[in-house]
Amino acid sequence: MRQTAHMDGKRAEAFSDGVFAVAITLLALELKVPGGEGPLSHRLVEIWPSYLAYVVSFLSIGIMWLNHHTLFNHVVRVDRLLLVLNLLLLMFVAVVPFLTEVVGDELGEHMRGRDATTIMVAYGLLMIAMSICFSAIWWYVVFRRDMLDGRLEQEAVRRSIPRFGIGFVAYVLTTLIALVSPLAALVLFGLTALYYAFEHLPTARQLDPDAGPGAG
Amino acid sequence: MRQTAHMDGKRAEAFSDGVFAVAITLLALELKVPGGEGPLSHRLVEIWPSYLAYVVSFLSIGIMWLNHHTLFNHVVRVDRLLLVLNLLLLMFVAVVPFLTEVVGDELGEHMRGRDATTIMVAYGLLMIAMSICFSAIWWYVVFRRDMLDGRLEQEAVRRSIPRFGIGFVAYVLTTLIALVSPLAALVLFGLTALYYAFEHLPTARQLDPDAGPGAG
Amino acid sequence: MRQTAHMDGKRAEAFSDGVFAVAITLLALELKVPGGEGPLSHRLVEIWPSYLAYVVSFLSIGIMWLNHHTLFNHVVRVDRLLLVLNLLLLMFVAVVPFLTEVVGDELGEHMRGRDATTIMVAYGLLMIAMSICFSAIWWYVVFRRDMLDGRLEQEAVRRSIPRFGIGFVAYVLTTLIALVSPLAALVLFGLTALYYAFEHLPTARQLDPDAGPGAG
Amino acid sequence: MRQTAHMDGKRAEAFSDGVFAVAITLLALELKVPGGEGPLSHRLVEIWPSYLAYVVSFLSIGIMWLNHHTLFNHVVRVDRLLLVLNLLLLMFVAVVPFLTEVVGDELGEHMRGRDATTIMVAYGLLMIAMSICFSAIWWYVVFRRDMLDGRLEQEAVRRSIPRFGIGFVAYVLTTLIALVSPLAALVLFGLTALYYAFEHLPTARQLDPDAGPGAG
Repeated sequence: MRQTAHMDGKRAEAFSDGVFAVAITLLALELKVPGGEGPLSHRLVEIWPSYLAYVVSFLSIGIMWLNHHTLFNHVVRVDRLLLVLNLLLLMFVAVVPFLTEVVGDELGEHMRGRDATTIMVAYGLLMIAMSICFSAIWWYVVFRRDMLDGRLEQEAVRRSIPRFGIGFVAYVLTTLIALVSPLAALVLFGLTALYYAFEHLPTARQLDPDAGPGAG
Repeated sequence: MRQTAHMDGKRAEAFSDGVFAVAITLLALELKVPGGEGPLSHRLVEIWPSYLAYVVSFLSIGIMWLNHHTLFNHVVRVDRLLLVLNLLLLMFVAVVPFLTEVVGDELGEHMRGRDATTIMVAYGLLMIAMSICFSAIWWYVVFRRDMLDGRLEQEAVRRSIPRFGIGFVAYVLTTLIALVSPLAALVLFGLTALYYAFEHLPTARQLDPDAGPGAG
Repeated sequence: MRQTAHMDGKRAEAFSDGVFAVAITLLALELKVPGGEGPLSHRLVEIWPSYLAYVVSFLSIGIMWLNHHTLFNHVVRVDRLLLVLNLLLLMFVAVVPFLTEVVGDELGEHMRGRDATTIMVAYGLLMIAMSICFSAIWWYVVFRRDMLDGRLEQEAVRRSIPRFGIGFVAYVLTTLIALVSPLAALVLFGLTALYYAFEHLPTARQLDPDAGPGAG
Repeated sequence: MRQTAHMDGKRAEAFSDGVFAVAITLLALELKVPGGEGPLSHRLVEIWPSYLAYVVSFLSIGIMWLNHHTLFNHVVRVDRLLLVLNLLLLMFVAVVPFLTEVVGDELGEHMRGRDATTIMVAYGLLMIAMSICFSAIWWYVVFRRDMLDGRLEQEAVRRSIPRFGIGFVAYVLTTLIALVSPLAALVLFGLTALYYAFEHLPTARQLDPDAGPGAG
C-alpha cells in the first residue's frame, strides 16, 4: 500500500516538475527587443532590466524547485489536501512570467516612480504568497507525522521551522524596500533566492547516520 | 507481459501529465496588462476578471489532473481505444487557455450582455466536453474489467457511477446559469472544481484492507 | 549494462514525450478570436477552419506519439545515430503548430486559391517529412537487430514494413489532392491520423505467447 | 542512502529534460509568416534565415541535451552546488529561443552589416556561456570523484578534458567569424552541434568491460 501512496507522491512531483519547468522556460518568452531606428546593439542593451528580472525570476523559480524537490523527497505519503496546497503553490509559480515581463517593461522605462513601485510591490506579494504556500506544505507534512519519512531527525525538522520564518521576513522586508528603491528590491529578491539555494531543509546527507538499509 | 502493459499505462500518464502541466502553465501567458495612460496599479486591478478566469481554469485543469491521476492509478492495462479517448480529453484540456483568455477579455469589458453570455456558454460546453471524455474513460475501464486494478472494491466502483452523473448535471446547470449571469457561472465552475477536489473516485486508501502484499 | 542502455532509451522517450506534449499543447495557442464589431458568437464561429486545423494537427501529433511510444517499447538499446534520427523527427513535430496556424488563417480567408494550396502543400510536405523520419527510425532499429526486443516475432516485424509504405503513399496522395481541394486534403490528413491510431506496429499483446518471465 | 541520492540525480534530470524539451519546442513559436500583399509561397520562402536559425538552434539544444543525458548517466550523487550549476546552464538554454528569433529577423532583413554582426556575436556568446556551464558541471563532477560512476575508466575521463577545450575553441572562433560573415557563423554553429552529436563524453558502451553485474 505504501508503495502505491509513494507513487502518488512521485506523480505529484512529476506534474510539479512539469509546471516548474514550463514556467521557468516561459520566462524567456517575455524578452522582446524593442523596435526602432537605433543600432541593434543599443536596443539589446537598453532592455537590461528585463534581463535582470529574467535572472532573478529564473533563480527564484529554479531554487524553489530545488527545495520543492528536497521537501517531497521526505514525503512518503500524500493526501488530497496536500495535493490541493501544492496546486495553490503552482498557481502562483505560473504567474511569475507574467509579472516578470511587467517588471522588465516598467523598470526599462523608469527606474523609480509610481509604476515601478507598484510592480515591485506586486512582485513582492507574489513571492510572499509562494513562500506562504511552500511553508504551509511543509508545516502540514510535519504536523501529519505519517506523511514524513521516518528517518528524518526530529532535531533537523525542528530547526527548519524558524528558518522558514527568516525567509518570510526577508520577503516582507524586501517588499517594503521596493517602496523606496524598486531596483534594489529586485536585486534583493535574487539574493534571497541564492540564500535559499544553500540554506535549506534538512537534506538526505544529514540523514545519513540514521538511514536503514532498506531506505529509498 | 503485464509489466509491459503497466509501463504503457505509465507512459500514457507521463504524456498526459505533460499536456496538463503545459496547458495549466500557459493559462498565465494569457494575462496581459492593458496599455494606456492610467497608473499601473489601476490597470493591474481592472483586469480582475482575467485573474478570476485564471484561478477558475487553473483549479479546473489542476483538479481534473488529480482525478486523472487517481483514475490511471487503478488502470493496470491500456489499449488503443483508451489511449485515443485519453487523447480526446487532452484535446479539450489544451483548448482551456484559449477560452480562458476570451472569458477574461469579455468579462473585463462587459459583465453581462450578448458576448459575455456567448463566451461563458462556450466555456461551459468545453467543461461539459471534458467531463464527458473523463466519464467515458472511466466507464470504458470499468466495462473492460481486465483493465482495472483487481483490488478495487466492486462497491466503490458502483458508487462512483452516480457521482459522475452529479458532476455532469452541475456543469450543465452552470452553463444554463451563464445565460442569466456569466460572472456567477464562472464562480460556480470554480466551486465545482473544488467539489471534485475532495469528492472523487475511490482512492488507494479505501483499498487498504484488500491490498495484497504484492500490490503496486 | 543492458539496464543502462535501457535507461537511455527511457530517457530518450521522456524527452520525446516532453516535445510531443509541448508541441501538441502549443497548437491551441495559435487560436485567436478575430477582433471587429460583430457579435462574439459570429467571430468564434467564423474561425472554424482554425478549429479543424487544430483537431487534425492534434490527432496527427497525438497518434504519432502513440506510435512512437509503441515503437520505443520494442527498443532495448539506443545509439547516437538513433537519437539523432529521433531529434530530426522532433524537429519536424515542433514545426506543426507554426504551419497549423497558417493553415487556419489562410483557409479562414479563402477556401481555395493560390495561398490555400500553398499552405496545404507545405503542410503535406511536413507530414511526409515526419513520416520519413519515423520510418527511418523503425527501419534502422529493425536493421540493427540488437536494438530490438528479441521477443518481437519476425513475422510481425516483416508485416510492418509494407504498412509504413501505405501510410507514406497516403500522405503523398493527400498532398497532391491539396492542389485541387485544400479543405479535402486537411480532412484526409485527419483521417490518415485516425487510420494510424488503430492500424499500427505490432503491439505488446501480439507478443504475448513469446514473452518470457523476465520480460519487462 | 546512495539510492536516495541517485533519485535526486534522476529528478534533476527530469527537470532538466523538461526545460530542454520546452525550450526546443518554443523555438518554432518564433516562426512568423510576414504579412503583406505577395503570394504566400514567396512569404514562406523569404524567411529562410529563420528556418536556418531554427535548425541550428534545434540541433544545438537537442545535442546539448544528448550530452547532458550522457553526463548525468555517469553521475551517481548530486549536491547543491551541482544543481545550481545545472540551473545556470538551463538559464542560458532557455534564452536560446529569444536570440534565435532575433537572428532570423535580422538575417532576414540584411545578410551582413552592423545588426547582423551584433546578433551573431550575441548568439555566439550565448553558445560560449552554455559551453562553459556544461564544462564546469563535468569538471566539478570529475573533481569530486565520489559523484562519478566508479565504473568509468580513468583514461576515458582524462581524454574527455581536452575535447571540451576543442569545443570551446570552436565556439570562440565561430564567434569571431561572425564579425566577417554572420551567415557563415550560423552554419558553423550548426556544424559544431553535429560534431558534438558523435564526438562526446565516454559512453556506456565504452564502459562495458568494467561493468559489474549490479550496474544500473
